[in-house]
Amino acid sequence: MNPPPDSPRPRPGGRTARIRDQVLEAVRAELTEHGYDALTVDTVAARAGVHRTTVYRRWRDAGGLITDVVDAASDIDWHPRDTGSLPGDLTALNQEIQDSLLEKPSIAAALIAVSFRSEEAARALRRLWEGRYVQSEIVVERAVRRGELTPPIDARALLIAATAPLYHQLVLLRTPPDPQLPGRAAAGAALAAQSGAFTDSAPDL
Amino acid sequence: MNPPPDSPRPRPGGRTARIRDQVLEAVRAELTEHGYDALTVDTVAARAGVHRTTVYRRWRDAGGLITDVVDAASDIDWHPRDTGSLPGDLTALNQEIQDSLLEKPSIAAALIAVSFRSEEAARALRRLWEGRYVQSEIVVERAVRRGELTPPIDARALLIAATAPLYHQLVLLRTPPDPQLPGRAAAGAALAAQSGAFTDSAPDL
Repeated sequence: MNPPPDSPRPRPGGRTARIRDQVLEAVRAELTEHGYDALTVDTVAARAGVHRTTVYRRWRDAGGLITDVVDAASDIDWHPRDTGSLPGDLTALNQEIQDSLLEKPSIAAALIAVSFRSEEAARALRRLWEGRYVQSEIVVERAVRRGELTPPIDARALLIAATAPLYHQLVLLRTPPDPQLPGRAAAGAALAAQSGAFTDSAPDL
Repeated sequence: MNPPPDSPRPRPGGRTARIRDQVLEAVRAELTEHGYDALTVDTVAARAGVHRTTVYRRWRDAGGLITDVVDAASDIDWHPRDTGSLPGDLTALNQEIQDSLLEKPSIAAALIAVSFRSEEAARALRRLWEGRYVQSEIVVERAVRRGELTPPIDARALLIAATAPLYHQLVLLRTPPDPQLPGRAAAGAALAAQSGAFTDSAPDL
């Protein structure tokens, strides 16, 4: 979708995009260094080196800034890796989640924390996750094509079963990172799916 | 461990316990109505009808009050239900989690939110969950005794796989409550365990 390098079309960027990059980078830095309470249009504008009226006009307030940080993450052309097997694909997905939650500073962890403060941020994060889970359904489609799974499979339920333990342990239980966790959570969900869980006719207990 | 009914020992209650009950009830009410930002020793003391110096002396600050609310929850003599089967026991566990997160107001949801603001609250919640997961290991022991599972089983990994989707969907993704979710997440984890997941020799992928 990007124009070729020497395209005469204006770059999908220019001054407006550059200002957005500077502002969102400042939001991420402020958020991970000083937290949501200290996040204001003024501190962000100062850090970004952008006039505060520009920031006010375009992002309005802290909620607008956070929302745009999340939306910028959604814009990234992300696709789950194809490792050749369902447990492998789910492990790769979990590894990405674990890495993003453990990097220092972690903008993912900071945004989750903010989602408990700002309904606007919570909505933006929900949209981001919704998009990621939709994009991840290809993992299940590939497994069906490989013969690893027999349809019908509730792809969302399988993806949540595979990824939820990562969020649970790292974000809620705050247990020390376990390098085995991405693979084990993935293997558990894959085994469950291959044993008949996550079908639309899953047993009601 | 409790004294027999006619024990001459002072009742493990009396004035001190009554004040604690009043204060913690006021903390829970303030927290769910006005949130963590508005929680102060003064507002809690006023709502509880207890002198503020009593609250200061015993709980010091908002962090101390929250910690004691969580610790009071740990004191409850809680045991997972025995329904006669592993999927049934895990479903009952999940149903309790779902109910506690969805009740209005939900003190469980409020405490999770606070854990992103206060390291003290996060530590208290971690202790509470740690205790609950230890108490829940009986579910796995019963399944082994019934012949539903073959040891060795990593009970904690199985319990987290069963319960994490509830927290993920209700707390992080904030999806609308799904009455099927407790049973489906339980069934998925039980199937995975019966297919060889959560053993100490789980495959490294």
